[in-house]
Amino acid sequence: MAENGARKIRLGMVGGGKGAFIGYVHRVASRIDGDYDLVAGALSSRPEVARESGKNLGLAEDRIYTSYEEMARAEAAREDGIEAVSIVTPNHMHFGPAKAFLEAGIHVICDKPITATLEDARKLLEIQPKNGAKFLLTHNYTGYPLVRQAREMVASGALGNIRVVQVEYPQDWLTEPVEQSGNAPGAEWRTDPSRSGAGGAIGDIGTHAYNLARFVTGLKTEAVAADLTAFVPDRKLDDNVHIMLRFEGGARGMLWASQVAPGNENGLQLRVYGDKGGLEWRQDNPNYMWFTEFGKPKQLLTRGGSISVPPAASMNIRIPSGHPEGYLEAFATLYSQFASVIRGDGAEYEALLPSMADGVEGMQFITASVQSSNNESRWTRLSEV
Amino acid sequence: MAENGARKIRLGMVGGGKGAFIGYVHRVASRIDGDYDLVAGALSSRPEVARESGKNLGLAEDRIYTSYEEMARAEAAREDGIEAVSIVTPNHMHFGPAKAFLEAGIHVICDKPITATLEDARKLLEIQPKNGAKFLLTHNYTGYPLVRQAREMVASGALGNIRVVQVEYPQDWLTEPVEQSGNAPGAEWRTDPSRSGAGGAIGDIGTHAYNLARFVTGLKTEAVAADLTAFVPDRKLDDNVHIMLRFEGGARGMLWASQVAPGNENGLQLRVYGDKGGLEWRQDNPNYMWFTEFGKPKQLLTRGGSISVPPAASMNIRIPSGHPEGYLEAFATLYSQFASVIRGDGAEYEALLPSMADGVEGMQFITASVQSSNNESRWTRLSEV
Amino acid sequence: MAENGARKIRLGMVGGGKGAFIGYVHRVASRIDGDYDLVAGALSSRPEVARESGKNLGLAEDRIYTSYEEMARAEAAREDGIEAVSIVTPNHMHFGPAKAFLEAGIHVICDKPITATLEDARKLLEIQPKNGAKFLLTHNYTGYPLVRQAREMVASGALGNIRVVQVEYPQDWLTEPVEQSGNAPGAEWRTDPSRSGAGGAIGDIGTHAYNLARFVTGLKTEAVAADLTAFVPDRKLDDNVHIMLRFEGGARGMLWASQVAPGNENGLQLRVYGDKGGLEWRQDNPNYMWFTEFGKPKQLLTRGGSISVPPAASMNIRIPSGHPEGYLEAFATLYSQFASVIRGDGAEYEALLPSMADGVEGMQFITASVQSSNNESRWTRLSEV
Amino acid sequence: MAENGARKIRLGMVGGGKGAFIGYVHRVASRIDGDYDLVAGALSSRPEVARESGKNLGLAEDRIYTSYEEMARAEAAREDGIEAVSIVTPNHMHFGPAKAFLEAGIHVICDKPITATLEDARKLLEIQPKNGAKFLLTHNYTGYPLVRQAREMVASGALGNIRVVQVEYPQDWLTEPVEQSGNAPGAEWRTDPSRSGAGGAIGDIGTHAYNLARFVTGLKTEAVAADLTAFVPDRKLDDNVHIMLRFEGGARGMLWASQVAPGNENGLQLRVYGDKGGLEWRQDNPNYMWFTEFGKPKQLLTRGGSISVPPAASMNIRIPSGHPEGYLEAFATLYSQFASVIRGDGAEYEALLPSMADGVEGMQFITASVQSSNNESRWTRLSEV
Repeated sequence: MAENGARKIRLGMVGGGKGAFIGYVHRVASRIDGDYDLVAGALSSRPEVARESGKNLGLAEDRIYTSYEEMARAEAAREDGIEAVSIVTPNHMHFGPAKAFLEAGIHVICDKPITATLEDARKLLEIQPKNGAKFLLTHNYTGYPLVRQAREMVASGALGNIRVVQVEYPQDWLTEPVEQSGNAPGAEWRTDPSRSGAGGAIGDIGTHAYNLARFVTGLKTEAVAADLTAFVPDRKLDDNVHIMLRFEGGARGMLWASQVAPGNENGLQLRVYGDKGGLEWRQDNPNYMWFTEFGKPKQLLTRGGSISVPPAASMNIRIPSGHPEGYLEAFATLYSQFASVIRGDGAEYEALLPSMADGVEGMQFITASVQSSNNESRWTRLSEV
Repeated sequence: MAENGARKIRLGMVGGGKGAFIGYVHRVASRIDGDYDLVAGALSSRPEVARESGKNLGLAEDRIYTSYEEMARAEAAREDGIEAVSIVTPNHMHFGPAKAFLEAGIHVICDKPITATLEDARKLLEIQPKNGAKFLLTHNYTGYPLVRQAREMVASGALGNIRVVQVEYPQDWLTEPVEQSGNAPGAEWRTDPSRSGAGGAIGDIGTHAYNLARFVTGLKTEAVAADLTAFVPDRKLDDNVHIMLRFEGGARGMLWASQVAPGNENGLQLRVYGDKGGLEWRQDNPNYMWFTEFGKPKQLLTRGGSISVPPAASMNIRIPSGHPEGYLEAFATLYSQFASVIRGDGAEYEALLPSMADGVEGMQFITASVQSSNNESRWTRLSEV
Repeated sequence: MAENGARKIRLGMVGGGKGAFIGYVHRVASRIDGDYDLVAGALSSRPEVARESGKNLGLAEDRIYTSYEEMARAEAAREDGIEAVSIVTPNHMHFGPAKAFLEAGIHVICDKPITATLEDARKLLEIQPKNGAKFLLTHNYTGYPLVRQAREMVASGALGNIRVVQVEYPQDWLTEPVEQSGNAPGAEWRTDPSRSGAGGAIGDIGTHAYNLARFVTGLKTEAVAADLTAFVPDRKLDDNVHIMLRFEGGARGMLWASQVAPGNENGLQLRVYGDKGGLEWRQDNPNYMWFTEFGKPKQLLTRGGSISVPPAASMNIRIPSGHPEGYLEAFATLYSQFASVIRGDGAEYEALLPSMADGVEGMQFITASVQSSNNESRWTRLSEV
Repeated sequence: MAENGARKIRLGMVGGGKGAFIGYVHRVASRIDGDYDLVAGALSSRPEVARESGKNLGLAEDRIYTSYEEMARAEAAREDGIEAVSIVTPNHMHFGPAKAFLEAGIHVICDKPITATLEDARKLLEIQPKNGAKFLLTHNYTGYPLVRQAREMVASGALGNIRVVQVEYPQDWLTEPVEQSGNAPGAEWRTDPSRSGAGGAIGDIGTHAYNLARFVTGLKTEAVAADLTAFVPDRKLDDNVHIMLRFEGGARGMLWASQVAPGNENGLQLRVYGDKGGLEWRQDNPNYMWFTEFGKPKQLLTRGGSISVPPAASMNIRIPSGHPEGYLEAFATLYSQFASVIRGDGAEYEALLPSMADGVEGMQFITASVQSSNNESRWTRLSEV
């Protein structure tokens, strides 16, 4: 595992003030491999929170901003200005900062989903980033070593022609109407169409599941038939997602995402079956993956351990097998490989790292699913929306 | 666990000659608790196989038949004639024997699905069994102690209002076109519409999954949206089943059944989530069940071990927890409790044991799913078919 | 799986009256494969219990005995007398019946440990069975298909030279002084030296663990260093067993048995490591076994499923993989294969089935361990005792 | 989870040059929570490796040293000199640097075992650290959140009086004589008495297992009876460790450590049983812990999720349950909490963080075990050595 302390990238952050979960995650991810120095932030639109959060993180006073526009302008003007920025605000606040920083020539690391609407996502595609500024969408689950391994195994034909893709992402934290409690800001914006967009669970976690299936199988989606439900009284967005999938070439799939399934903390799971073999992986025990060659015993592949086929070159393994790596390390791999891209020595990662196009497809997936669900679960093509 | 050797029931069998899997299973199930004596059989339509199989099982020569009609007639006429018969032939050969024995006043134990067509199933309902002869459909998975426990927990409200039902039944034994090999008779008839009916995997295992979900939750099905696929070239019936389910009262579900999922031997699994808690059970490790009260740690309930709510009265536990019981014991529980019904001391089991009505509903499920799949996965009501 | 209903063996039973656990288990085991007919019994020394139990099992009145001596005499004299007898009494009541029936020319199936004392076990070896009557010791865990597979894999060299053997058998049912409650007869005699012998947990479950390790590895034991403890106040026999093992040829092992380990129902587990590979098996999920060839991924071998080396010929598989078999089936395999031995067509099983010599070695193991523990855990040879 | 970027601690490192595993781990651990800045290093005694490694990590040229003595002297003299140093050399090279830096008033973070000999460990205790310089021993497994939870549960009496402690640490990476291959420096020094000390596996991983058992249970060890073996031909130190343990107050335990157990990557596991309940935890799936209150269902406690008793205040949880944290995060917790101690706001952590006294006890454990093993496994008191 490379360390490159000699050439750290100056990083800024939009959102992620005190108490925010995902901003904290991005910061840890930026530190693990030592590729970034956080030096500026518009961490909150509330000046006091912005200042307190910034000081606690060791930012210089003059680089603590309360507006991302100001930050983009000021940092672009500094000789030691930030080279990259992490956008960790709610969905509806992704588009504005992403545009501003890209047009200022600053690389953008953006949380998913890319925007709140498909329209915004498409507008983002039109932008002309200054100086070739790059974009990374943090579909972090693609950073797990064994997810990379799965992708390469499918690509190499180890499973044969893919027939069936079962992906699911059950959680339980929205089983009760916590968004009405007044003290769960994360639940509030996620269930609020004006901040989340037209999808609830489907946007928050369904896109992760969808992206994971796409990343591993490489299959192109033809159409979805969806049945979205809001089970909790007065909830405005779906909290349970049932989708059937049809892929080009004939493979079929199912996607289940739920935030009302008691006993499931963060149960993202992918199973892929072809005519020669099958793969099964769970995010909550991510250092292990089942591989079955049809007619032979199941094998337990381990991160960093014995793999019966060529290990994926793109796996980013920090410590030996049996010493578990987790969510933060997978997230850090995206940061670290994007740092290589920024430095100009990461060409091999460009195809792997989730891109703006992936973000647009994610929005197509959400949009088509919502349409299908509103239309008696009619099969709806992603290309129609 | 009761033993009642003093009052054994005289049993016959139709089908189940040498080499047949399910006939053997029925015989073991009939022996485990010592409630039956196998004394007659039409084990095969091929005289030689019938005779050899019968002798091996210790049947008297004059009670080895080659025709079920003859057997029904002859046994009904004997003073020591059989009291019950097990029908273990392929699907299209259920209706005839079931009718013959019921009309001869002999209790019928019939493998699932009840018939090859919904029409036949409905005709069976019309029959007037002589002397109140009873009928048992061997949806054997309902005999597992923890499945019974699950049913009673749902009924008692331990999960609250049910919202989501995820059931799946993946296998892999039809990944390749074994039915074309010439030496896999079980695969042959299961993929042959003239013997199986209109459903392949959906009839063979999908009905088990469907029945299990219905048995545990007690929810009534409103409609299905199905996408059935035959992945193996030249296969005439579906080998992969994707279905979305809508239940009365608003619960939603997904059902996946597959016979082309490498690495899955017999992976029947049920997960049920309500607004107060969740349950998860897998058939391949059936002595354990997860129960989560929302907001509390997951509990591992064990067959015969500690249960945090009243243990189900209907559990049939033979040996202490930690000493695994399996498939044959669950199957035997149906046999044993049906024996009580036959003897007249099993009133409490009548509502539990899978009935002719369950069989008809199973055929409605198959029929509606096939129709939906043929009709662009349109939501199709069971009551429409 | 063979069925041989045409030639059933007439069976009797000593012990196993109403409410007894292990007698019930033996009866089910005798029924599963249809090789035996239970026709006589001295099920209890209390006449009323004997009679009621016998009638319930369908025994003829004149074959319900209250004394095993009488039963041995009377049955040996009948033309249709029993051919075999199951002895399922507490340990101190094994020797008498075993001697009586063997000397009457009746085959003996005896629960473990073989006797309450090493002295008795050795006296049993001296007996001259009439007409070559055979003896089976029900170390039932050796009947599990994957235990047989493990044994053959070790023998075939798949693990290389065995270095380390870790075996354990934790339970929790004696965590509290239930034997003092007055309503736990099973706990009472197991903690009573006058009925159990000098060992508590070591005799009840330690011998099973020891036998399993010996059965699978084939290694001969050199010496033991033991630390036995009775944790529950006023308990007269050990309820926790710590033993280090040295085998001939240099392999080392550890054995842990406990009846005071909360959360463990019946956690028998064996792990064997050689210079080429390792095997791991747990009784509470017995249809699966881990096999690792050093340097390759772990494989999950399944009962009836894919096995990467030749499947053991001695596995007795009734139903397909994924359809779990359990404790009763493993137990039944001993009964069924002993039936073959009795009928004269089971020569291949003789080396596999636990024998009188295994019983004597089990008593040496108990005796040496108790001596070592009383002697500051000094290494004690089995051959010394 | 606190971040304190405003007051970073200046850190140096001894050892950990290019290619070294544990030095890399310490660096990541120091970065995760953002409490340290690595600014100096004697990363290797080979000047070229030291320089290249230092430059890669972004160290200034004048702070890249090749001798720890020089580094201690020079850094102590700088105004911006390091405040703390990480010692990540082989065992025999711990004592010298630890002494030098402590006497220079620089806090020491030292890998385990504390020294190569008990004598050295005791000499370390005698040292007078300048300016109250502190010492941290990186028994990193104590940093796992659920290990902290386990410790507090035992302390709170949730398990009652502890009776049985089963701890094990199997690995397989030394199954073959890799230390003779010439390209496995980590294996070389670990199997070389002149660099490792008198213990092989017992020093490398046995001490971790021992420390974990002690940390969680708080029990004091009375004596050990050990059987250490070197299975690989020509290996000079033990690669398999069997130990029985006696604790003050009567609890008993077993410890197994092995580096020759194929199929085990890093299988540290602790099981603790008291008269009221039991706990079970495995390092390779560290976000889960089993807890059983005797007579109730097993509960699966999760890091950050529902806990049925008060959650441990000392757990250091970064991200929500279901998002796995791993080895590096646990390691980082020691670094982060030691940073608080250094800054003067970490009083509550002092009792938790592994100390010099723990290091000395670890050496007593190794020494007593080696003596016992050399003495026919005689019970040997830690206080004797």
